Amino acid sequence: MKTWNVSVVGASGYTGLEAIRLLLSHPNAKLNRLYADRSAGKTMDELYPALAGCVPQTLLPMDELGNDNSDVIILGLPHGVSAEAVNNLIKAGFKGKIIDIGSDLRLKKASLYEEYFGYTHQYPELLEKFVYGLTEFYPEDIKKADYLANPGCFATAMQLAIWPLVKNKVSDDFTVTGITGSSGSGAKATNGTHFSSRFGNVSAYKVFEHQHLAEVYQSLGRVSDVKPEIHFIPVSGPFVRGIWMTIAFSCAENTDLNTLYHEAYAHSPLIRLQEGIPQLKTVVGSAYSDIGWVKKGNHAVIGVAIDNLIKGAAGQAIQNMNLMFGVAEDTGLTNPPIVL
Amino acid sequence: MKTWNVSVVGASGYTGLEAIRLLLSHPNAKLNRLYADRSAGKTMDELYPALAGCVPQTLLPMDELGNDNSDVIILGLPHGVSAEAVNNLIKAGFKGKIIDIGSDLRLKKASLYEEYFGYTHQYPELLEKFVYGLTEFYPEDIKKADYLANPGCFATAMQLAIWPLVKNKVSDDFTVTGITGSSGSGAKATNGTHFSSRFGNVSAYKVFEHQHLAEVYQSLGRVSDVKPEIHFIPVSGPFVRGIWMTIAFSCAENTDLNTLYHEAYAHSPLIRLQEGIPQLKTVVGSAYSDIGWVKKGNHAVIGVAIDNLIKGAAGQAIQNMNLMFGVAEDTGLTNPPIVL
Amino acid sequence: MKTWNVSVVGASGYTGLEAIRLLLSHPNAKLNRLYADRSAGKTMDELYPALAGCVPQTLLPMDELGNDNSDVIILGLPHGVSAEAVNNLIKAGFKGKIIDIGSDLRLKKASLYEEYFGYTHQYPELLEKFVYGLTEFYPEDIKKADYLANPGCFATAMQLAIWPLVKNKVSDDFTVTGITGSSGSGAKATNGTHFSSRFGNVSAYKVFEHQHLAEVYQSLGRVSDVKPEIHFIPVSGPFVRGIWMTIAFSCAENTDLNTLYHEAYAHSPLIRLQEGIPQLKTVVGSAYSDIGWVKKGNHAVIGVAIDNLIKGAAGQAIQNMNLMFGVAEDTGLTNPPIVL
Amino acid sequence: MKTWNVSVVGASGYTGLEAIRLLLSHPNAKLNRLYADRSAGKTMDELYPALAGCVPQTLLPMDELGNDNSDVIILGLPHGVSAEAVNNLIKAGFKGKIIDIGSDLRLKKASLYEEYFGYTHQYPELLEKFVYGLTEFYPEDIKKADYLANPGCFATAMQLAIWPLVKNKVSDDFTVTGITGSSGSGAKATNGTHFSSRFGNVSAYKVFEHQHLAEVYQSLGRVSDVKPEIHFIPVSGPFVRGIWMTIAFSCAENTDLNTLYHEAYAHSPLIRLQEGIPQLKTVVGSAYSDIGWVKKGNHAVIGVAIDNLIKGAAGQAIQNMNLMFGVAEDTGLTNPPIVL
Repeated sequence: MKTWNVSVVGASGYTGLEAIRLLLSHPNAKLNRLYADRSAGKTMDELYPALAGCVPQTLLPMDELGNDNSDVIILGLPHGVSAEAVNNLIKAGFKGKIIDIGSDLRLKKASLYEEYFGYTHQYPELLEKFVYGLTEFYPEDIKKADYLANPGCFATAMQLAIWPLVKNKVSDDFTVTGITGSSGSGAKATNGTHFSSRFGNVSAYKVFEHQHLAEVYQSLGRVSDVKPEIHFIPVSGPFVRGIWMTIAFSCAENTDLNTLYHEAYAHSPLIRLQEGIPQLKTVVGSAYSDIGWVKKGNHAVIGVAIDNLIKGAAGQAIQNMNLMFGVAEDTGLTNPPIVL
Repeated sequence: MKTWNVSVVGASGYTGLEAIRLLLSHPNAKLNRLYADRSAGKTMDELYPALAGCVPQTLLPMDELGNDNSDVIILGLPHGVSAEAVNNLIKAGFKGKIIDIGSDLRLKKASLYEEYFGYTHQYPELLEKFVYGLTEFYPEDIKKADYLANPGCFATAMQLAIWPLVKNKVSDDFTVTGITGSSGSGAKATNGTHFSSRFGNVSAYKVFEHQHLAEVYQSLGRVSDVKPEIHFIPVSGPFVRGIWMTIAFSCAENTDLNTLYHEAYAHSPLIRLQEGIPQLKTVVGSAYSDIGWVKKGNHAVIGVAIDNLIKGAAGQAIQNMNLMFGVAEDTGLTNPPIVL
Repeated sequence: MKTWNVSVVGASGYTGLEAIRLLLSHPNAKLNRLYADRSAGKTMDELYPALAGCVPQTLLPMDELGNDNSDVIILGLPHGVSAEAVNNLIKAGFKGKIIDIGSDLRLKKASLYEEYFGYTHQYPELLEKFVYGLTEFYPEDIKKADYLANPGCFATAMQLAIWPLVKNKVSDDFTVTGITGSSGSGAKATNGTHFSSRFGNVSAYKVFEHQHLAEVYQSLGRVSDVKPEIHFIPVSGPFVRGIWMTIAFSCAENTDLNTLYHEAYAHSPLIRLQEGIPQLKTVVGSAYSDIGWVKKGNHAVIGVAIDNLIKGAAGQAIQNMNLMFGVAEDTGLTNPPIVL
Repeated sequence: MKTWNVSVVGASGYTGLEAIRLLLSHPNAKLNRLYADRSAGKTMDELYPALAGCVPQTLLPMDELGNDNSDVIILGLPHGVSAEAVNNLIKAGFKGKIIDIGSDLRLKKASLYEEYFGYTHQYPELLEKFVYGLTEFYPEDIKKADYLANPGCFATAMQLAIWPLVKNKVSDDFTVTGITGSSGSGAKATNGTHFSSRFGNVSAYKVFEHQHLAEVYQSLGRVSDVKPEIHFIPVSGPFVRGIWMTIAFSCAENTDLNTLYHEAYAHSPLIRLQEGIPQLKTVVGSAYSDIGWVKKGNHAVIGVAIDNLIKGAAGQAIQNMNLMFGVAEDTGLTNPPIVL
């Protein structure tokens, strides 16, 4: 059986943590080294006692990255930090593949980072080297990729729903509501993730302005000459894991959503289709994306549920890694969710 | 100071409970008798230990309603049961005012009960006798009303947002997402309110088909010749109290939402307006409705937050009662929410 | 009707917030000035949008305290800061009464601050000037007090349960488990109150070493020559408000807990007694303390539920204020909890 | 590699569901047939959409059990129903092994069912045929067993903590507080698992009288001639999965808990020991039991966290099954918890 070594950078953050957790039960990938910035020198047990006894590695400082000889490195780092780490890695002569879960390498035009993220990209020359890894849509590109930029969580859910509609010119105007759990905001304690304010609460943020729209527009632009308009209302929900999204639009009365989605995802083992809007918990803890729909007359709504840390981050990274190493895309990812 | 007696029917259900709780601190209304069906003979303490020592009355059986001589009776009863109780009450010669929190008397056309609720209304002759009590829009009708049908929770939130838009012909097509807490499903244990399935979960139900649309269309039809189309996605959220709703629509780029809403609610003491979408918890436990908005180009979203049991049920019943008895509509309703 | 002016210091913190919220519906106390440190210059609306329109005052900086002429000042400040503010206030010639919700002035011996809190008390001469305000036990002292130190939240729950047992020499050894909500940790975002780690979680902290034991031992020492031993396990629970505590102990088989507690609280309007252990939610949002018990053979457990921000902090401050100003202790505090 | 077939009876309930979920990723056990009572004829997808695509079997009616030829049958059935199903199975000549997750076959004396459960056991002759499966304590018995009675969830947590103490005569009097999630109450909607009453709430039930004490006393009676007294306070917590338990007791001041527990669990791969009380979430979703302690002077508290559906039910059933089929006890059970 083919095996390969994987190192994880940013092991103390939530996406790094989730990559490690998923790699522990992957049949082909062997967890090699772990890196962190401020948590270097600690073990995963110390950071996350839930992992006690499961991860023997001690976290290495970032400056040891230069002599890593893994077959692939997965990075889960904050805005800006990620591109720098990738740049250093390549400069240091790293020979393996690179998968960046962060947002620094998803967009092709550096100017979009100014527009959507509000900062000047320091390594614009890297952008063209990275393949955008929405697994279901770009499998051939991904199989050939050495450097991969993993999609954002909201961007993943949104594209899974909208792509078949845009490709088939069903609509070009979408009202999207996406509710995300607190784990999407990362491990650092902030007012937005304070238990006392989030518990039993619902709130919106960055309405019509979420930065994930940049990659969605970029990616959908490759599908069709339809230029869709997406009105996106991001919502913070009172739960930890998962994204639950609805996409509402007008369409011709005879649109056959059932056929459309079944054709689109006929070869996608981690997409589960259903009539009716899926519930959030049907995917939490798993790599599955559940997609369903309701249509009435000339109006319809698509529902998508994903685990933001799995299909929305570390799980899709591993799905992409699988293709990059020539194994089935769902290798190590077929466990059902924890259900309750 | 003017005072009046109030009896509550359906005291063991959540809306009855909430009416009782609010009446306890009302300066003019005096809680008189409480009625229940299966819980007759019990005290409120036994049903809700949280009320221990606060409500001395024992619950009376429904058949004692005939000799009630309160100034007003508030009913919080299930579908179908409510109209029958009202009919019996009127037949028994009850002289006071009647406020029905249920849905049986909200619609003017009996046929709409078949279409939206799936049952044949047994007392169609009652329908024209009841004034529809969305306080902010029909204060003059309500002041003169003897019999009042209190609006539904989703219907209240939806109209508070849409009414100013339809009246001013801003748009006629709305995509509405409304997330409600478990208390909206009542006190009876069901699969939909099972803790193990609802906790950490989000799900949709009755998509495009919620029965509250009937009263919304009926009520908005009185405002303007615009016939709005409302695409409503009702959502069950993992919290107990509150409705958080967004209403998305296209509009002329120069639409001035700020002026529009401030004009609409200039005389509404329980409506709080803000720039930006309100959070859910800013109203929970209070009679306030928080409304805000975001507009970008020719697309906008209105956010509304209400407590489903207060403004969405018992609180609006009391707001209406206040007008029916000639006191300020916010009497006994100005306490701020519990905040945390 | 007797009225008096109240200023609140530390208005941006949770206990200050709660004091303000409760004062808004107090019939005698008039909210005068609000003070804060970093939030000076802001309004309560800005800090807590839930209060929009309810609190007109702008927060003043701490250095304006010197010219406050309220009848009473309530302070909700962190460890150490509180004693300094009180000292400045007295030095500046403040003529009114002072109620400190913090822990700086609860203990009589300065050395206990070293032992239990780990810091050297800077104003030991203040300690003897403050009356310890566990309302139910020291009403006569409190009525005469000018300066009052409000008890801690766990300390309040614990004493309400244990006091009658120690006084009647029922037992001198107690195993106590107290579960508290996240609001007990204050408004600042920390790892312990991060939603992603606290949601669905339960954890213990400061086992056998919680600082509230100091004031409990001090206070119980005034009741009887029994020197009780309390083994206290503080627990963080996945909810925002409330403390739910059990106190287990051995006792003579014929101990009559019912009589004992009814005698102890015969004149306490905010204590509610019951057979069986109370639930947490029966008090949340109210000033009530619910106490119940189960006894089997020679072993028993007492259960206590309080709202940590009300009876455990701001509500008891107001209960004490009532006695200090000669009105009934439950004035403004009798509203039932929000139930659901 | 050794493989065997497993059928699951009671597949629609939570423990059956969990057994199925765990068996899906077991390397040796092959999921054979599934049985249910009222849900017969349905698929697992229909009952639990989270499992969509993961479990092909349709649920068979109970009366098809007679011709099952699996190597082992795992039963997750309610009180009383279980013993009857087992009796029928044996009478029908079933040749394989039987693992009952329910409580019907745990006690050796039929009279204890009257005393602790309140019903008359109908098949007392079965009781001696079943081995009590607390894996860590009875591995040799379990390896030889054909018929196994799986321990209760609270009973498992309690024994893991108390066993080493009783065996080493550290104490004979324990005050135990165990907080359980809603999944412990099963799939049926009841008042106790109503979201509106359980959310944000904490409550006690069956104080000093929980039926799991019967099996704990029976099992501990085999270890030592110390007759321990256990004062158990069962608590319902506002979360779905897990049991978090503290065990408080007095002990000699020089008791070395560290050595004691490390010796007791030196050969137990699924027990994780730590200094300090474990958090609940460190085990949720995994088969691990986390155990830790705090000692001060002559008083100590042990903390235990287990997933009530895994180590407390289906996971321990599989751990026992592993021993019964001669493979390592942690086979298929080493995945770490989901962490967040």
